[in-house]
Amino acid sequence: MIDSALGIIGTGIMGEPMARNLLRAGYALWVHNRTRAKAEALLTEGATWRDYPDALARDVDVVISIVSDSPDVESIYLGPHGVCETLRDGMLCIDMSTIAPEVTRSVAAEVRKCGASFVDAPVSGGKTGAEAGTLSIMAGGDSGDVERAKPIFDVLGKSTVHCGPVGSGQLTKLCNQLLCGLNLLGVCEAVIFAKRVGLNPGTVLEAVSKGAAGSWALDNLGPRMLARDFAPMFMIDLQQKDLRIALSTALSNGIPLPGTSLVSQLLTASQAAGEGREGTQALVKTLERLARLE
Amino acid sequence: MIDSALGIIGTGIMGEPMARNLLRAGYALWVHNRTRAKAEALLTEGATWRDYPDALARDVDVVISIVSDSPDVESIYLGPHGVCETLRDGMLCIDMSTIAPEVTRSVAAEVRKCGASFVDAPVSGGKTGAEAGTLSIMAGGDSGDVERAKPIFDVLGKSTVHCGPVGSGQLTKLCNQLLCGLNLLGVCEAVIFAKRVGLNPGTVLEAVSKGAAGSWALDNLGPRMLARDFAPMFMIDLQQKDLRIALSTALSNGIPLPGTSLVSQLLTASQAAGEGREGTQALVKTLERLARLE
Repeated sequence: MIDSALGIIGTGIMGEPMARNLLRAGYALWVHNRTRAKAEALLTEGATWRDYPDALARDVDVVISIVSDSPDVESIYLGPHGVCETLRDGMLCIDMSTIAPEVTRSVAAEVRKCGASFVDAPVSGGKTGAEAGTLSIMAGGDSGDVERAKPIFDVLGKSTVHCGPVGSGQLTKLCNQLLCGLNLLGVCEAVIFAKRVGLNPGTVLEAVSKGAAGSWALDNLGPRMLARDFAPMFMIDLQQKDLRIALSTALSNGIPLPGTSLVSQLLTASQAAGEGREGTQALVKTLERLARLE
Repeated sequence: MIDSALGIIGTGIMGEPMARNLLRAGYALWVHNRTRAKAEALLTEGATWRDYPDALARDVDVVISIVSDSPDVESIYLGPHGVCETLRDGMLCIDMSTIAPEVTRSVAAEVRKCGASFVDAPVSGGKTGAEAGTLSIMAGGDSGDVERAKPIFDVLGKSTVHCGPVGSGQLTKLCNQLLCGLNLLGVCEAVIFAKRVGLNPGTVLEAVSKGAAGSWALDNLGPRMLARDFAPMFMIDLQQKDLRIALSTALSNGIPLPGTSLVSQLLTASQAAGEGREGTQALVKTLERLARLE
């Protein structure tokens, strides 16, 4: 399937390194982005620019979209100059954004009306995972469609799990995000507790990280909190967007999520403090303010 | 130091396998337990019974206590027939229970008045870790005393971290427990979310466990929740005891722990449902009741 022509819509923090990995793997690549400047590097590396999603879709077999939020995906596929205007029988659309599952389903339905297939495939692993081609990919769609996308996923990630029909990738990603949120809150509370009672927080991380308290968040975000390194691995604003989708999906399905709700409230305090564009580890600063530990 | 005579007070779920490992490592071992029946197996394996803590302390160089809660430790050391009645210059007392740090400090002060040394060394790893000799040990005390205890710790655990002066082991263990609590809540919320929205929860665990959502709790408690296996790795009643100590230590130090507080409230609901003696993974049943997913 290396002879497929691919189009990527969205060349931001995630999309740019993903596009680069596909170029390096030998795919012919067309790109579109709201801001052309963010695609320039890829154009010098061999990608071809298109001004609109419909113009891009006309030239390719597979469209990959990776943008920020539900309205962006709706507009790319269904808006004026959207992908659906030029979609043809047999094409495959893969949305790798993290968006509301009901938007995924409605966009997929429109794509299918054009005779094309749709797979939702949000990812976990952030910028570093996108660059290294080690993303975890959570795919929703018909088995045949996910299978067809597999060679592309193998370039972008280290694991792909087929989670169920269209929308299941998004729902699984929401599970991922609420786990990340609660693990993060645990690390923040452990760090402020350790500091305030006079422990060396670095020694605490060393003592507890290999046992039953261990988590990716503890290993990766804990040391950054202690080093006061708040550069984003994943931005608070985006985590909040994902938790907003998780909580609204939960609400409409009658699922109380008391812990996730609390995490979101505390992240709102971080946003109120102007820290929305910092990494999620900056949540520790909200806890520090609550404890007057600034 | 293999020629030290050791006394173990408390031969319950944790103490019994720990004592067995010390016997097998070649230590001469004296034992005491509130209920003698729970020590019988160890007696047939070579341990020597003593009716009271003071009678045990008379015969040994090092006393190890591993019991349930603060009042038990106070009574073992300071009560009638307590260890302090027969403590001698140069002896070493190691309390491996998880108890309130202020009780640790007051017991340690009394032990020192007798000319003996005190190390607090709570553990993480549960029954399986105690059996396998792979506990994580969080030690508080003077460096020389922790060093002296090290050969014993090496039999019982796979890692020992010296966390600071007396009480620091307990404080570090509290950090461990609040991390466990929040990681646990994350797994519960992910599982009920996955079930209610129609995902296969096993597939979700597979898709998210290797990435940024990963944790010991997800790997070890998630599959047990799905298998409806609520046998205790670690009992809800004991987790609640530990969180009670964490929250009360936090309160007296002016540390708000909103997440840990929520976890404790939800575990209270599990206890109210008669599930206190089940494993912490049974918290998922409280979340299922909230979501009417029973």
